[in-house]
Formats: sequence, structure tokens, C-alpha cells
Amino acid sequence: MRIAVLLIALLAASAQADLRTLVTSWLDGHQKQVLDELVQLLSIPNVAADHPNIGRNAERLQQMLTARGFRAELLETAGNPLVYGDLRVPGATRTLLLYCHYDGQPVDPAQWKQPSPFTPVLRRGRLEDGAPIVDFASVTRVDPDWRLYARSASDDKAPIVAVLAAIDALKSAGRAPSSNIRIVLDGEEEASSPSLVPAIARYRDRFRADMMIILDGPTHPSGRPTVVYGARGIVTADLTVYGPVSGVHSGNYGNWIPNPAQRLAALLASMKDENGRVKVDGFYDGIAPLAAAEKAMIAAVPDDSAQVLRAFGVAAPEAAFPQLQQALQYPTLNIRGLVSAHVGSGARTIIPDRATAALDLRLVKETLPEDLVKKLRAHIEKQGFHLVDGEPDAATRAQYSRIASLKVSAPPLRAFRTPPDDPQARALVAAITAAYGAPPVELRTLGGTVPIAPFIQAVGFPAVLVPLVNFDNNQHEENENLRLGTFFDGIVTVAALLEM
Amino acid sequence: MRIAVLLIALLAASAQADLRTLVTSWLDGHQKQVLDELVQLLSIPNVAADHPNIGRNAERLQQMLTARGFRAELLETAGNPLVYGDLRVPGATRTLLLYCHYDGQPVDPAQWKQPSPFTPVLRRGRLEDGAPIVDFASVTRVDPDWRLYARSASDDKAPIVAVLAAIDALKSAGRAPSSNIRIVLDGEEEASSPSLVPAIARYRDRFRADMMIILDGPTHPSGRPTVVYGARGIVTADLTVYGPVSGVHSGNYGNWIPNPAQRLAALLASMKDENGRVKVDGFYDGIAPLAAAEKAMIAAVPDDSAQVLRAFGVAAPEAAFPQLQQALQYPTLNIRGLVSAHVGSGARTIIPDRATAALDLRLVKETLPEDLVKKLRAHIEKQGFHLVDGEPDAATRAQYSRIASLKVSAPPLRAFRTPPDDPQARALVAAITAAYGAPPVELRTLGGTVPIAPFIQAVGFPAVLVPLVNFDNNQHEENENLRLGTFFDGIVTVAALLEM
Repeated sequence: MRIAVLLIALLAASAQADLRTLVTSWLDGHQKQVLDELVQLLSIPNVAADHPNIGRNAERLQQMLTARGFRAELLETAGNPLVYGDLRVPGATRTLLLYCHYDGQPVDPAQWKQPSPFTPVLRRGRLEDGAPIVDFASVTRVDPDWRLYARSASDDKAPIVAVLAAIDALKSAGRAPSSNIRIVLDGEEEASSPSLVPAIARYRDRFRADMMIILDGPTHPSGRPTVVYGARGIVTADLTVYGPVSGVHSGNYGNWIPNPAQRLAALLASMKDENGRVKVDGFYDGIAPLAAAEKAMIAAVPDDSAQVLRAFGVAAPEAAFPQLQQALQYPTLNIRGLVSAHVGSGARTIIPDRATAALDLRLVKETLPEDLVKKLRAHIEKQGFHLVDGEPDAATRAQYSRIASLKVSAPPLRAFRTPPDDPQARALVAAITAAYGAPPVELRTLGGTVPIAPFIQAVGFPAVLVPLVNFDNNQHEENENLRLGTFFDGIVTVAALLEM
Repeated sequence: MRIAVLLIALLAASAQADLRTLVTSWLDGHQKQVLDELVQLLSIPNVAADHPNIGRNAERLQQMLTARGFRAELLETAGNPLVYGDLRVPGATRTLLLYCHYDGQPVDPAQWKQPSPFTPVLRRGRLEDGAPIVDFASVTRVDPDWRLYARSASDDKAPIVAVLAAIDALKSAGRAPSSNIRIVLDGEEEASSPSLVPAIARYRDRFRADMMIILDGPTHPSGRPTVVYGARGIVTADLTVYGPVSGVHSGNYGNWIPNPAQRLAALLASMKDENGRVKVDGFYDGIAPLAAAEKAMIAAVPDDSAQVLRAFGVAAPEAAFPQLQQALQYPTLNIRGLVSAHVGSGARTIIPDRATAALDLRLVKETLPEDLVKKLRAHIEKQGFHLVDGEPDAATRAQYSRIASLKVSAPPLRAFRTPPDDPQARALVAAITAAYGAPPVELRTLGGTVPIAPFIQAVGFPAVLVPLVNFDNNQHEENENLRLGTFFDGIVTVAALLEM
């Protein structure tokens, strides 16, 4: 019996190892075809506000899905349409909902090193390394280190094409996904996906699945296949300490009229210890210590911390969080900006009228934005400040010697995190491990925030991110690019999850 | 014998009380003549960089001094000429050096509520209260609350005319100064008086005296005659804490890459306690406690603290320095500006690359700028920072986890303070007390800084300020003005010091 189980596992592993060979071989003969499809898609401008071109993208994508056997449709919303496809697999007991987006960040063509961000350019390597341009039309074979430069090359049209190529590769070998595959292509992700959550109510039955897989973002910098179980949330707020109604002469009144910048400094200093640990009461409440398996997972992430620190010109990380992956498991209290009167040539010798710190708090699943803001307000009050909303009036100024305001500056986004021991997640990791003969990098959470979080929260089934593109893709910036070797690996990864 | 002394004192007091009557009576008949002379002087533009008009001012002033019996001359310098006058008094055993300046702050005529800052306008009160304009040519008598609006009306041409009017008033009664009078009129005060100290070496014998009296600045807000024994000095410096070489994503690296704004906040907080007392080691070294007489002098200043706090919208002053005059006796450490990345609409979710505080330190006579900066540097190092000059290089960044710079941003100016028990100072105060039948407000030191300090330091004899104009004169701003009643009182005050 044990031998039989082992045999089946070995056969399965062998079949999966075959999968990588299968996809790679198929790609050997279809590189140009896959890249052609991507280049054509990238040639349609896709800024979310450009509705005519957004419409052209959506139609093209519907056709591309239909060609692979999806029952494809455009789901109308109050904004740009969602492109939706449904591929039923006879006998499948699992339904996966894949998510990508077809819109891209706004562009400033003048900043690009090519005539248009929507006329893709192929280079024999990195632009920064002076790699020359290759005439795409005359290319017969590409190198893994070559890069395709265009808006959305990485973020997020390549993953869409990777899904279709993986289906084509499986089909060429007479194989098919092992799950029902649903795919939703968002047309407003770079505009914070305002239509996505409302679409759930309108198209409820389209969004049922056992797991959502978000194909977006870059892989771990090591370039290894990557599975991400969560992302931190965020709440931003402006903290202002009020001084005199207008700046007063620092000579005539220095030592006597309290300085709001000094008091803001003391207040900010009271919030964190010298090791970088937040001292606000209850800030870390509810965050259980990591289980042994989670610790092992985090420890296995092949971060090259020394290289990152060197690149940033920083000698040492915060003492409270010496390991990067450990640091990401906790909420943050970050000063993203400070201002009070002027420094430099505009500085005047005054006691300023106010001092403001722009804060961002990254959230983990256990910390809710409203709760952290409440605790922060309590901390500020504990330091002797009277909290106001907006400008303090004369009566308030006469009554309280320490006056501050804390204003949440944008709608908070919650964190999400799928338990790594979720059965679907384990099946996914097993499939990728089998395909590559080595496990993927598993990240318990991203440090950053993804706008899809409210959608994940709303659908209610587990979600993971499987990023497919190179980490140095200039995402959101000029000269966005896609490393072709990483993209081809991404097709293997998608094939693995389709057959998981 | 005691009766004889008392009799002499009473006679002297009577003679001095007569002085106020004498000057006031003379002014009753000569208001228009005095104001005419001031208006004509104000009609000559006097921005220090406007050399042709500066020359016209100097020539006019030389004539005005000559007309009163001064041996007047223009002392050439590398910049604008000093107008110098010497009035010898037979039998006088004391020489006073009076200082005023004839240049004024630059003007932005568009900001003025009159066609030109150099075409004086007379109003029946304060512009802010809607006081109407009076046709100066048709006026026969003016009211003490009327105001003359023009650049330098207060700062500092009125004091020059006050000196000449006082001499005229004394002369009309057959009286003369009791001291030899030397007067120097600076043409570059608003440009920090670069030619004044060098002139001492070139014109050494002109600058010998027993006491310098600086006729500049506003009286105490109470409007009472004011004698000021000193002014604080200043040193300004920019304190920067360095973070990563450029801003890094606050999600991807939050909790791990240290935040320079947080570290700057902690560093600034370490410099002062919650009561506003500086915690830098040795910051108050050498400052002896005030003697009983000094305490009494400070306590006698009729500050209306409650009114000032109300006007500034501040509930309470710093706990360490509850009395304004007491606060001014100590050096300050003031944050005049703060900046790190951006706040408001430009804020991004980053860990900034640096954070800078613009500081100003006001100095008292016992604290030298170089010494305070040295102590501040030692404090910063004690907080674990490595101090650099300019941008830290890669090797420095790799070696030190806390890096800061402290850059003195302008040449420091020392404080000066004449002992209030200086015999010349006592004679001056006695003369003013006798003239008014009440003592002047005596300020041990101004909180602010005067650019004349290096000159005072260089000449080496005692110096005091005797301000003659209203405190609400819009000095340095648009709509500078002179309250006529305060100006006429100033003529009495000058007469008193001439006869002291």
C-alpha cells in the first residue's frame, strides 16, 4: 500500500516534471506566436480613462478568450467593462477564479526612451545596460535575458497572455486544466478598481469559485516562482500640532511661545522606541506569534538582505525587526512626510504656526484600520494633546495648551491573508514544486497593499497572488518592461496551476 | 547737608521736568516744521542698493546736521557712505555716539495702500482701522494718534529728525547738550551693515566716545520710554538625518528600513524637555542667576502677557520660562522649519531619503555661537549619530547606521549686553526719569538680534538702545508708519539724553 502511494506520487511528479518540458518544448516552436499576441495586445493603449481604447482592449481580449474555448463576455459596470471568461472542464471538482487587469498606469511619453509606450520595443537586454533594439519583425528566436518595453508589458498584460499560452501548450499535448477556470480581467485596477466589488452583487454566479489566483505583480527578486498569501493594508493620516495663529518672531518670543515643530517631534518620538517598535498602547494586539511552520516559511525566503541594504545605502535595518520577512508580518507606523514653515533659502527665524507629519500605517490581517487610528488618537491624547477636527478656534486655543489633529487622508484598505495551510494553497504549491522540481518562494504577506483586497474580502474564498514577471520591470514608471525568460517561466507556472 | 543734597536733586528734577514742558511747548509751535523736514527726508528713496538716491539722502543729511552746528562729513566706505556729525560742547566731559540708519528695507509698491512708499501719506489714525487720509499741505495741527505712512517713517528716519528737533528745541531756550554729541548715520543697516566695522579702523578717532546710544527699533508695546541694554545673538543651522539613498516603498520595506524623519523627531525630542528647557549638556553654562536688581528690573517691565497670548492664540507659555522677560535672558534652540519628502496632496507612501530641521539658536552674552554649536554636535553624537559634512558617501553609509549633518547656514551674530549699573546708563535712565517724572521701561535684553552687535563689540564702550517709535509700525513690511504722538515723545526722550 505504501509502495502504491509512493508510486502514484512519483508518477504524478514525473507527469508534472514533464509539464515543464512540455511547455518549454511547445514554446520553442511558438515563441514568436506568443510574443506576437502580446505585442498586438500592448499596441492598444490602455489608460483607464481612455474609454475608446479600453473598449478595443476589451473586445480583443474577449476574442482571445473565445479562441481558447472560454465562454467569454463583457460584464458592463458603472465604469470600464470586466472581461470575463468561463472554461468548463468535464469532471472537474474545483473552480479557480483567475484575476488579471488589462488597464495600465497613465503614461508620459516624453519620459520613455522609445517613440511610444504603446509601440513595443524589443531589446537584447536591459535599457539601463545600453542593450540595443532588435527588429521584432525579423526575429526568429529570442533570448531569456531580452526584454520587451511597453506600458503594461509586465503590469498586467503579460500574465493574461501567459494564461492563454499555457492553455495552448496543454492543448497541443492533448491535455486540459484539471479545474474549471474562470477568469476576470479588470479594466480599472490602476484606478483602484471601483467597479469590481459592485460587480459581485450584479454578477454573483460568475464570481463563485474555490480559490482566487491573482496573476499580478513581480516575483521574488531571486526570480524563482513565487506564491504570496497576503498583503498588508494601509491607512494614511495627517498629524498636525498647532502653534501660534501665525508664525511669531523667534527672537522676540523664543523660549516663551511653545514651538509646534518641537512638540510634534516629541509626539512622534513618543510613538516609537529607538529600535523601531511602536509604543502606542495595543498597537500589536491580536497578532499571534508565528507558528513554527510560518517561521520556517519566512526563513526559507531567499532574501539577499545585504544586497538590498547596500543598494539603499543603509548600514543596518531596524533593530526590532532584523529580518525583512519578519518585519512585514507586523503593522507599521511610518512618517512619509514632514513639514513646518520652511527650510533652506526660504527659512525665516520664526516659531512656526503649525507642524504636520504625513503618516502611513500598514496593516496586517489582525489589525483593523479604525482600531489602529483609535489607538493612535488615544496615544496622542495621553501625551497631553487636545484633539480637534480642522482648525482650532479661539476658544479652543485659549483652553488647551497642546492642540493637535489627526485626519485620515484616504479611505483605508484592509490587509488580507490566506492561511498557507489552506488545502487549495497546498495543492497549488505542490503543483508548482512538481513542475520545477523545487518549491516556489512562499511569502506569508507582501509588505505593500493591493487594491484587490476589498474584492478578496467580498468574495469570501481563499486568494493567493502568483506573480509572473521580473521584479525590475519599472512597474508604474516609464520604460516598463518584461524579461522574456521570466515570462516564459510564468507560462510554465500557469500551466502548473491549471493542472494542480 | 542732607537737606542741601535733596534740594539740589529737587531743583535738578524740576529743571528736567521743565525739559518736557520746554520741548512740548516748542513742538506746539513747530509741529509742521518738524514734520516737513521728516516728510522731505522720507521723499528720497533709500533702498541700500539704489546708490544715486542713497547719495541724495547722504547729502541732505549732511546739510541737516551742518544746519545744527555739527561738523558734518560723509565717510566713504567700500559701500554706501556713513554720514557723520560731531557737535562739540564747551566744558563737556562726556562724549555720546548716537547711531541711526538712513537706508530702509526694499519695497514692493504694489503691496502698499498708497501710490508710493516714498510719497508719505498722513492718516487720522491706523490704516487698519480705516483712518482717512489728511492733506498734509493744508494741516496746521496734528493729533498724537495720527500716523505718517512711508518707508523708513519709523525705521529709521524719524529718530534722525528727532535728534535734530531736540537740538532745535533746546537751542530755542538757550540750552545745549551736556555732552559732546557724535552721530553716525549708517547707509546699509538693512543690508547687515557690512561697511560699519571696517570703518572703525579707517576713521578711528571719529568713533571714540563714552557711550553709544542706538536710536532704532520700537519702544515697549506699553508706549513708555524704553531703554534696552542688550540684544540676543543668533546662529542658524540645518540639521539633516539621512535615510536610504532615495525614498523607498513604505509597504515593501516598512518596519525594516529605518525612517530618517522618525529618527530626526527622536533627536529633536532629545534636545528639549517637555517644559521647553534645552537638555543639551552645558547649554546654559556660564549664565549666572539674575541678581536681585536684575530680577526687579525684569519684573517691572509692564508686559501684558495675557493680551499677547490671546493675540497669538496660545493658552500658555513654555513651563520652564513662564515670564516673557525671563525667557529672553536665556539662549534658545528653536525649530524654525522642518521638511521631509511631502505632506498633503504630494505625499507618497515612502520612507523618505532624509529629514531636515532648520534651527535657530538665539544667544546671550555668556553663550558664544561656536561653543553652542560644538555642544549641539556633541549632543547629536551622544544620541548615536555619526556627523558628516555634506552628503554621506557609500563607505560612510555602509559603516554607520545613524548619519546626520549639522550645517551652520549663515555667519553667527553675537549677543551684546551692557550692565544696567553702568554709570553712563544710570545717568541716561535718571535723565529720562526726570523728564517724564517716571522711570522708562528697562529691558535687560531684546529677544531678537540687531546687526549693530559686531560694531558694539568692536568699539568696546557701553551701548544701549533707546527706541523712539511705536511698536506697531509695520517695520520691514508694507505700510510702514509712524505714530506722531510717539514720535513727539521721542523728541522729549532725545532732549533728555542730550542733557543727561
